[in-house]
Amino acid sequence: MKITKSIKKQTKWSLKEHSKGKKIGLIPTMGFLHEGHLSLIRKAKEYSDRIVVSIFINPTQFSPEEDYKEYPRDEECDIKLLKNEGVDVVFIPEVSLMYPGEYETYVTVEKLSKEYCGRTRQTHFRGVTTVILKLFNIVLPDFAIFGEKDYQQYIIIKRMCRDLNISTKIIPAPIIREIDGLAMSSRNRYLMEDERKEATILYESMKKAENMVKKGIKDVKSIKKEMVKLIESKKFPRIDYIEFVDSETLRRVSTIHGPTRILEAIWIGRVRLIDNIEIRPKR
Amino acid sequence: MKITKSIKKQTKWSLKEHSKGKKIGLIPTMGFLHEGHLSLIRKAKEYSDRIVVSIFINPTQFSPEEDYKEYPRDEECDIKLLKNEGVDVVFIPEVSLMYPGEYETYVTVEKLSKEYCGRTRQTHFRGVTTVILKLFNIVLPDFAIFGEKDYQQYIIIKRMCRDLNISTKIIPAPIIREIDGLAMSSRNRYLMEDERKEATILYESMKKAENMVKKGIKDVKSIKKEMVKLIESKKFPRIDYIEFVDSETLRRVSTIHGPTRILEAIWIGRVRLIDNIEIRPKR
Repeated sequence: MKITKSIKKQTKWSLKEHSKGKKIGLIPTMGFLHEGHLSLIRKAKEYSDRIVVSIFINPTQFSPEEDYKEYPRDEECDIKLLKNEGVDVVFIPEVSLMYPGEYETYVTVEKLSKEYCGRTRQTHFRGVTTVILKLFNIVLPDFAIFGEKDYQQYIIIKRMCRDLNISTKIIPAPIIREIDGLAMSSRNRYLMEDERKEATILYESMKKAENMVKKGIKDVKSIKKEMVKLIESKKFPRIDYIEFVDSETLRRVSTIHGPTRILEAIWIGRVRLIDNIEIRPKR
Repeated sequence: MKITKSIKKQTKWSLKEHSKGKKIGLIPTMGFLHEGHLSLIRKAKEYSDRIVVSIFINPTQFSPEEDYKEYPRDEECDIKLLKNEGVDVVFIPEVSLMYPGEYETYVTVEKLSKEYCGRTRQTHFRGVTTVILKLFNIVLPDFAIFGEKDYQQYIIIKRMCRDLNISTKIIPAPIIREIDGLAMSSRNRYLMEDERKEATILYESMKKAENMVKKGIKDVKSIKKEMVKLIESKKFPRIDYIEFVDSETLRRVSTIHGPTRILEAIWIGRVRLIDNIEIRPKR
């Protein structure tokens, strides 16, 4: 497994593989890898001959009051895991290479970036789309895999690629959960023991909604009310948002009559967790 | 010469040429071609095996009160001229193909786009960088040629490419002028006969500045004063801006001690013209 820190060398490697007719799959990560990330690598292998994993904690997607400096890192362990998965290249650029002096170009998917997570994290998605476009231009992937855990991010990146005529295909991969249902996330490690126990409320509340829909209830207001009641019965959770949206456009729906995503963001103590599931109306 | 209106076909053609080892040069235009554009094509031939000229009047770079609808068009004549120059492909996409429904992704070079022409045309450069990135992703050029006539645009696009790791090389081409010094521009045709005569004031005033610098004057304030006096002695011209800037960073300079660009935007009646020249301090 190659470890590349140079942008030029990464592009050179990619061009060479392309000239041999190889398809490249990219999994962009911020490191501190868990089973969720590894599932993306396995997904990428279904599509690609060569696998590149990037590890880059992207400063432009954190706001000043967020946890950029404290974001968990463990490069040594990450590299071991990736070697084990048969990854071809790990691309680990320095911040000063990705954002040289006088850096000032940003890519924005304007409306989609303002909603949901964008309301509390105003420049977050601008940072994400910018760094993803940069990584695409450097790694030149045929496919890139994004976890559905960050569902809004996945939809925004798909939209960016359509709008900007980017040839990389965006492939979604399903959420990987702990045994008790908590979606895997690098931020879970910030949870205290008793917070960790209550963190399952995200998945539980969505499962409750799913059951209501299965019983034929279609009115979002009634379903949300029950979800809020369940969440508020616990000690730690504080709701940021619960939204029912069209799975493709992310537009809010008030009645469930097609494929719908429930998007949730919940504070558990000082940790903000997100999760989502797909529900379909009863036939 | 091929005429392509389909994005997919253009990309397919470009990929095929690349696979044969051919270098592609792109000249993005808004049509209504004149000698200035043709000089860009000749420049492109120095670098490329294949020449693509795009004709696309890009709506996102016009503000609502600007002349998008009235922008001059003459596709038939353009195609004749391009055939004559030995262009390989003319890419002429429809607006609805370039900006499909729910289009919402924009690329912005934030600081550079706010200055100079960006002050009166606030979303202009955002539209330019967005469409250029799209054209690059569609045509996949190794080189793209931009006229120095739009000097701020040239610098902004160079910055975008550096910041976003775009592999296309940006090549500048010198301004082409009428015999009396007026820089060629599609907008010149809007000038009435007596306005056209006075439009030479842009070049004349910059030449005056150049002569002062040649005589050893380095203080921008004194030079500007003389330029304003000359311009205001005429009937039609109304100054939008006259700026002395560093040729690379576009930062304003108050003393001329290195390669400096004079940037000018002047209203002649209802037509806004721009021009620029490079000056160097006397040794």
